[in-house]
Amino acid sequence: MTKDGKGNSDKGNDKKAQQYGVTPQSVDFNDWYNEVVKKADLADNSPVAGAMVIKPYGSALWENIVRWLDDRFKATGHESLVFPTLIPMSFIMKEADHVEGFAPELFTVNKIGTEDLTEPYVMRPTSETIIGHMWSGWLNSYRDLPFLHYQWGSVFRAELRTKAFLRTSEFYWHEGHTAHVNELEARAEVRQMLDIYHEFCRDILALPVVRGEKTASERFAGALATYSIEGMMRDGKALQSGTSHYLGQKFSKAFDVKFQTREQKEDWAHTTSWAISSRIIGALIMTHGDDQGLMMPPNIAPIQVVVIPVGRKDNFDEMVAEGEKLAAELRASGLRVKVDKRDGVSNGFKYNDWELKGVPVRVELGPRDLESGVVVVKNRNSAEKETLPRAEAVGGMTDRLAGIQGWLLKRATDFMLDNTVNVDTYEEFKAAIEAGKWVRAFHCGDPESEKAIKDDTKATARNIPLDDAEFFAEAEEGVCVHTGKPAAYGKRVIFGRQY
Amino acid sequence: MTKDGKGNSDKGNDKKAQQYGVTPQSVDFNDWYNEVVKKADLADNSPVAGAMVIKPYGSALWENIVRWLDDRFKATGHESLVFPTLIPMSFIMKEADHVEGFAPELFTVNKIGTEDLTEPYVMRPTSETIIGHMWSGWLNSYRDLPFLHYQWGSVFRAELRTKAFLRTSEFYWHEGHTAHVNELEARAEVRQMLDIYHEFCRDILALPVVRGEKTASERFAGALATYSIEGMMRDGKALQSGTSHYLGQKFSKAFDVKFQTREQKEDWAHTTSWAISSRIIGALIMTHGDDQGLMMPPNIAPIQVVVIPVGRKDNFDEMVAEGEKLAAELRASGLRVKVDKRDGVSNGFKYNDWELKGVPVRVELGPRDLESGVVVVKNRNSAEKETLPRAEAVGGMTDRLAGIQGWLLKRATDFMLDNTVNVDTYEEFKAAIEAGKWVRAFHCGDPESEKAIKDDTKATARNIPLDDAEFFAEAEEGVCVHTGKPAAYGKRVIFGRQY
Repeated sequence: MTKDGKGNSDKGNDKKAQQYGVTPQSVDFNDWYNEVVKKADLADNSPVAGAMVIKPYGSALWENIVRWLDDRFKATGHESLVFPTLIPMSFIMKEADHVEGFAPELFTVNKIGTEDLTEPYVMRPTSETIIGHMWSGWLNSYRDLPFLHYQWGSVFRAELRTKAFLRTSEFYWHEGHTAHVNELEARAEVRQMLDIYHEFCRDILALPVVRGEKTASERFAGALATYSIEGMMRDGKALQSGTSHYLGQKFSKAFDVKFQTREQKEDWAHTTSWAISSRIIGALIMTHGDDQGLMMPPNIAPIQVVVIPVGRKDNFDEMVAEGEKLAAELRASGLRVKVDKRDGVSNGFKYNDWELKGVPVRVELGPRDLESGVVVVKNRNSAEKETLPRAEAVGGMTDRLAGIQGWLLKRATDFMLDNTVNVDTYEEFKAAIEAGKWVRAFHCGDPESEKAIKDDTKATARNIPLDDAEFFAEAEEGVCVHTGKPAAYGKRVIFGRQY
Repeated sequence: MTKDGKGNSDKGNDKKAQQYGVTPQSVDFNDWYNEVVKKADLADNSPVAGAMVIKPYGSALWENIVRWLDDRFKATGHESLVFPTLIPMSFIMKEADHVEGFAPELFTVNKIGTEDLTEPYVMRPTSETIIGHMWSGWLNSYRDLPFLHYQWGSVFRAELRTKAFLRTSEFYWHEGHTAHVNELEARAEVRQMLDIYHEFCRDILALPVVRGEKTASERFAGALATYSIEGMMRDGKALQSGTSHYLGQKFSKAFDVKFQTREQKEDWAHTTSWAISSRIIGALIMTHGDDQGLMMPPNIAPIQVVVIPVGRKDNFDEMVAEGEKLAAELRASGLRVKVDKRDGVSNGFKYNDWELKGVPVRVELGPRDLESGVVVVKNRNSAEKETLPRAEAVGGMTDRLAGIQGWLLKRATDFMLDNTVNVDTYEEFKAAIEAGKWVRAFHCGDPESEKAIKDDTKATARNIPLDDAEFFAEAEEGVCVHTGKPAAYGKRVIFGRQY
């Protein structure tokens, strides 16, 4: 084994290895994203307008995301259900704001078998309406509440310009739906779920996100209050990564979700909904990548360690067997490990391939290493290879992965803080947005002004950080950066361009 | 605590407990089924034609099914992917048999947003076509094969008369799709998956099923060979519980799934598909139930043990705390345990409720039991309660559950064997079918004759048991029970009415 990544076999493949690379992130972020998604085997375009195919590596990543969240939902007392994919068109029409928000994006089913439908169905854009309808039949007394429900599935919203994971006509998510006896309990639920999302992003995906409330014009169609977590991508744009809504009694009144109170009176339930979708994979890619490709956070990575047996033709099988032994030892510590047994591609090709796929740690094992009792280890976030005693490499792997996880969170946090500026004039505001930054500015709260800012700069109010948000939570008074009127909210609002 | 199931609290609720019961299975199997599904909180009707809502207890059961199968698919080298829910109508039209099979059942999407589509989409009835299309783009060389793919999701097939889990317009499943270099490998895959389904049914769901090949007229639309597992319900009807298809090169030729062989020639892949759907829950219900309701096989039961604290008003909280302690001990052995903490319903109501839901073991814990260091244990499949030392009850729980699992499989196997008869004349055939049995008969293999038998008796050929099937595999020669011609297949075919 040599140290320059060129092992023993076909050097002709080095050209292929180069071709396999991607446009550097620093050259064209958009091209880099699209190429990484395809070449890392995350997703592919489909023949269905706006829909993607999630490929094995992307699917394994999504499964890990689903499993963590699902465990957490269950641990906090939520129950999964399965509601139909179709919703009667008339249901969507029942809540006025909801109609307005979703009508332009609906997929309509007009025909079943040979029968033309007089009452069409829509493919769900979200399920508040049909769930409200079902709850109405299930709810009698305050004793039945709370309903703490969620489902995993896909939803459908027409998109003109699509981008894998970020904006697809069919996307994948859980939607949580809960019903409570009063506002207090409902709002506590809304907050609990936002905090779970925040914890998930920070501790598992290594994504620093800002918890905050949306301004009125950025609310979910039908909500009284919408809370979000917002992350900064490496091009400075914001990505709304999860939302939690307090719906008041709007849907419960539209769908008659009514119960007898402890005091024997009638009341309508206070409801919530919350979601994280497959676009979180877009956030992960655009937060952690570099010019070489993806960087998977170890805590969610489908493959945490890849073992590459480095042999010549006459001892390749033996090295593969040794690689499997090493993998078995690593798996015994609960790690997700893959042995790259591919024959007929060069080591250089393999190294590039796993770098592009963002596997946190690569272990190379060659015949001479075996003799000397060492292995060569390379972290995805470092340019250096290390030669280590085998036992040390194995024993230290969990700590090594934790170190990479921490490094990713710190890099992303530093990047977000470095690219967020406080501005107090509209000129500064525009210049900072143009420079690809987030701005923290006072705002009067007038939706007309928000709209004018958006038309002018393409930036929108991302959220108003909560008092206990990890970032940007300071209480402060000032005047609106746009209108000069007194500022609302008692603190600065985050503005930025968004995905 | 008393032993007759009437504890201490409100006797008035005994009436409610009776009302809570279901029509006995022996009185009306169909009513029993529909009532059990609703009252056990498995599923509910939905406002969408032919679609159901799967409620928490049903969803938890389905999740256990998904988890077991998913682990097994991964362990046998399969990878999950996610394909779009919609398929271009033109794709469905490409494989002639496929069109004919599915056209009458399709859900058609004609409109997206405000745009009327000139090229409509269908909601997938199954995904061979779009997967074939994608494979065509991914496949180059024999080195790329096999593709061992599957996805979890729902599919859509219009149904006029629906029945929860058994026949719904939207149903839930995995669909496996694999592509291979030759027929031999593809057929090995088809058989491997059938055997996994068989193992799952027998060892996990306690369902005896017959592995066999379908006759030509019962094949999947587009398959060269279809294999199924067939189970017998407690009304004597058959339920096809899983299928595995060899598709030859039909779909790969229709979608150009072509590769360069080791010998540098061009060939089309040999493909397979296989599925178990949410109807397996119907099979489970109809195989294991009794007059009181469900009987969940312990190996898949969402709740394996329910602990019922039996206290009066003044010590109920204390008994709940003791119940939680007991549950924690049981959970420490890896068991799925629920403590019924409901206040305001009688013990009798709770007992009936959990019997109806089919929880394998109930443990009652009252103040006097606590003092004496005993608990009262009742198996779902027995009328007797046992009073046991607490440590014995806890320590013996895993064996107790295994015993119930074995009892269920034996009961179902005996039932199937007792209700299957060999017949050699068409009169015997008709009489046995009329009596609700399966018949084993020789058949000439003529599809016209199968059709005539179906029109005459409503019975269809379920399958031709494989040579190594656990049941009914004997090689035998004879003449067709219907036409008198020489029998095909070299053994008797199973006929029965089906769900």
